[in-house]
Amino acid sequence: MTKAITEEAVTGVYSNIYPKTVCIADLGCSSGPNALFVMTEVMRTVDKIRKRLNHQSSPEFQIYLNDLPGNDFNSIFQSLPRVQEEIKEEMGSEFGPCFFNGVPGSFYGRLFPTRSLHFVHSSYSLMWLSQVSNVVEMNKENIYMASTSPPSVIQAYYEQFQKDFSTFLKCRSEELVSGGRMVLTILGRKNDDPTSKECCYIWDLLAMALKQMVSEGLVEEEKLHSFNIPEYTPSPLEVKGEVEKEASFIINCLKVSEINWAECGDKFDSSNSFKDDGYNVAKCMRSVAEPLLISQFGESIMDKLFHKYGEILSDCMSKEELKFVNVTISVTKKE
Amino acid sequence: MTKAITEEAVTGVYSNIYPKTVCIADLGCSSGPNALFVMTEVMRTVDKIRKRLNHQSSPEFQIYLNDLPGNDFNSIFQSLPRVQEEIKEEMGSEFGPCFFNGVPGSFYGRLFPTRSLHFVHSSYSLMWLSQVSNVVEMNKENIYMASTSPPSVIQAYYEQFQKDFSTFLKCRSEELVSGGRMVLTILGRKNDDPTSKECCYIWDLLAMALKQMVSEGLVEEEKLHSFNIPEYTPSPLEVKGEVEKEASFIINCLKVSEINWAECGDKFDSSNSFKDDGYNVAKCMRSVAEPLLISQFGESIMDKLFHKYGEILSDCMSKEELKFVNVTISVTKKE
Repeated sequence: MTKAITEEAVTGVYSNIYPKTVCIADLGCSSGPNALFVMTEVMRTVDKIRKRLNHQSSPEFQIYLNDLPGNDFNSIFQSLPRVQEEIKEEMGSEFGPCFFNGVPGSFYGRLFPTRSLHFVHSSYSLMWLSQVSNVVEMNKENIYMASTSPPSVIQAYYEQFQKDFSTFLKCRSEELVSGGRMVLTILGRKNDDPTSKECCYIWDLLAMALKQMVSEGLVEEEKLHSFNIPEYTPSPLEVKGEVEKEASFIINCLKVSEINWAECGDKFDSSNSFKDDGYNVAKCMRSVAEPLLISQFGESIMDKLFHKYGEILSDCMSKEELKFVNVTISVTKKE
Repeated sequence: MTKAITEEAVTGVYSNIYPKTVCIADLGCSSGPNALFVMTEVMRTVDKIRKRLNHQSSPEFQIYLNDLPGNDFNSIFQSLPRVQEEIKEEMGSEFGPCFFNGVPGSFYGRLFPTRSLHFVHSSYSLMWLSQVSNVVEMNKENIYMASTSPPSVIQAYYEQFQKDFSTFLKCRSEELVSGGRMVLTILGRKNDDPTSKECCYIWDLLAMALKQMVSEGLVEEEKLHSFNIPEYTPSPLEVKGEVEKEASFIINCLKVSEINWAECGDKFDSSNSFKDDGYNVAKCMRSVAEPLLISQFGESIMDKLFHKYGEILSDCMSKEELKFVNVTISVTKKE
C-alpha cells in the first residue's frame, strides 16, 4: 500500500516540476540491507514516468540518506558500489547519474538547505521521540504508556509527540520546494486511547521480561523505574491534527494498515529468521531497541533479556493474532 | 601559504556570486581529527566577508565531505555534533545553518549534480592514481618510480596521472558553477625528472625495508615485485599542462612550497608523536599507505615493517634535511 502511495507522490512531483536534478531524502534510513531499497524504488518510478513522457534525457538524482550520527553509515557506503552497479545494469546507461550522500543528524532539526528537496520519505522512524526525560520516575515499572500509567505520563508523551512532529513538519516545510511531496509511514494506532493494546502490548511484554529479571536480581529495580521507551504511536487523527496545525502542507491521503507481528521478522532479514515467530519478533525488536536498552541496563543482560522476551512473545502469539498498525500520510508542500 | 590561497579563492567566489546556499566540497577528506578543519576555515572566511560587506543574513552552507567508500565516515559523523556546537559558539547564532554530508566515491568520477558547487578543496589526495596495474611486473623490486625503473614504467605512471587528473578536471568542471573556484594541493616535485629524490626517496626507503624483509624470508619476493605504489607526484608544469589542455578553468595561481619530513608527523597528531622524527614520519606514512600494504603483504608484517622503516628514516634524516614538495593550484571555472 505504501508503495502505491509513494509511486503516486513521486509521479506527482516529477510530472509537475520536471527538475533537472531530482533531490530525494530518506529520513531514518537505518543501515540494514534495505537501507537503499526505497530510494532505488523512487528512482525506478521517476525513470518509468520519464520514458512514458518521452523525455529524452534522464534527470540527475541527488539522494540523501539520513539517520542519527551513531548510525552505521560505513556499512551503507561500502555496499554502494555494488548497488550503483546494479542500478546501472537495470536502468541502462542513459539513466541518471545518481549521487548518494549520507546526512548524519536528527530530523527534529534542519538537515538540508532551504527549498532544496523534491521528495521526502520516512518509514518507521517518526514514532521515535527526541526525548522522554519528562516522564522519568513517574511511570514506575511501566516502560511505555500503559493502562496503569498516571494521566500525567500519557499527557507528557502526547505533548512530546506534538512538539517533535510539529518541529519535523516545520523543518521539512523549509527544505521542500513548493509542490514537493512527503510520504511518511509511522507506527501508530487505530484506537483513540493511546494506551490501547494494539500499540502498547509489545512494550508491556518487554516490561514483563524486565520485571522477571528484577525479581531474579539481574536488573536493579531503580533502573527499570527510570526507563521509558521514547516512542509515541499516534492515531491518524493526531497525525492529521499536527499537519493541519502546522499548515504548510496539503494532505493528499491518510491511510491505516495493519501488519501481523509474525511478519515483522520476515521484513528485516528472512534468511536468518528462526522457525519460531516469537523469537523472530524478539529479534526484530532487538534490532530496534537494543541501543536504548544497553545504555540503561548494560550489554551483559541483553541475550538473556531477549531470550525471555522471545518466550513471552511466543506464548502470547500462540494464543491470539497480534498486529502492528501503520499510519501513512502523503502530503504536498503548499505554494 | 595554502591558507592564504584558499582565503583568496573563497573571498572571490562569495563576493562574485553571493549564493544563498554556499556549496563546498572537500575531496579526499580522510577521517582523522583534521577532517573538518578546512571546511570550518572556509565557513569562517565567508562569514568574515559577509560581515565586512554588511550583509544582514548569513548564507546557508552545504558541506560535502568526500572520500572512498572504505573511509571511516562513522568517526567523522560521530564528531559532528561537537564540531557543530563549537561552530555555533564561535560564529554566533546568526551564522549558517551549515549542513554536513558524507559523499562516498572516487573523485575520478562524478560525485555531485551538474553546476551545484561553488568551491572545491582537495589536499594531499590528487597524487593518488586510480590504478597502476599497467606497471605491474615491469618495475621489479622498486615499489615506485626509481632511477632503476625502465622508461616504460615512468611513462605508464605519467600517462595514468594525465588520464586521472584530466578526468578529475572534467568531472569538476561539470559540477562547479561558472565562476566557481577550486584549490588543490598535491604532493609533487620541483625537478623535471619524475624519479628525482625529492619525490621518490620516501618510497625508496620503504622499498629498502621491504627488501630487507624479503632477505629475512618474511616477505615473498614475488609479492614485492608485483607491488607498486599508485601515486604520481607531478611537477607544477605537469599540473598546469593538464589544466590548460582540459580548458574549463582559468589558473589564478600555481605555487610550490616545501615541508620538512620532520614536520609531517606533527601535522597528523602531535599529542601522540614520538621524540624520534624517523618514527614520526614512519607513523605518518603508515596512516597513508597501510591499507595498500596490507592488501598486498598481509596485516601480520606491518608492525615489523614500519619499525624497520622508522629506523631507516631516522638514519637518513640524521644525515640530511629532507623535504616534501607541495604543488598548490587555484583555478576558476570559466563562464
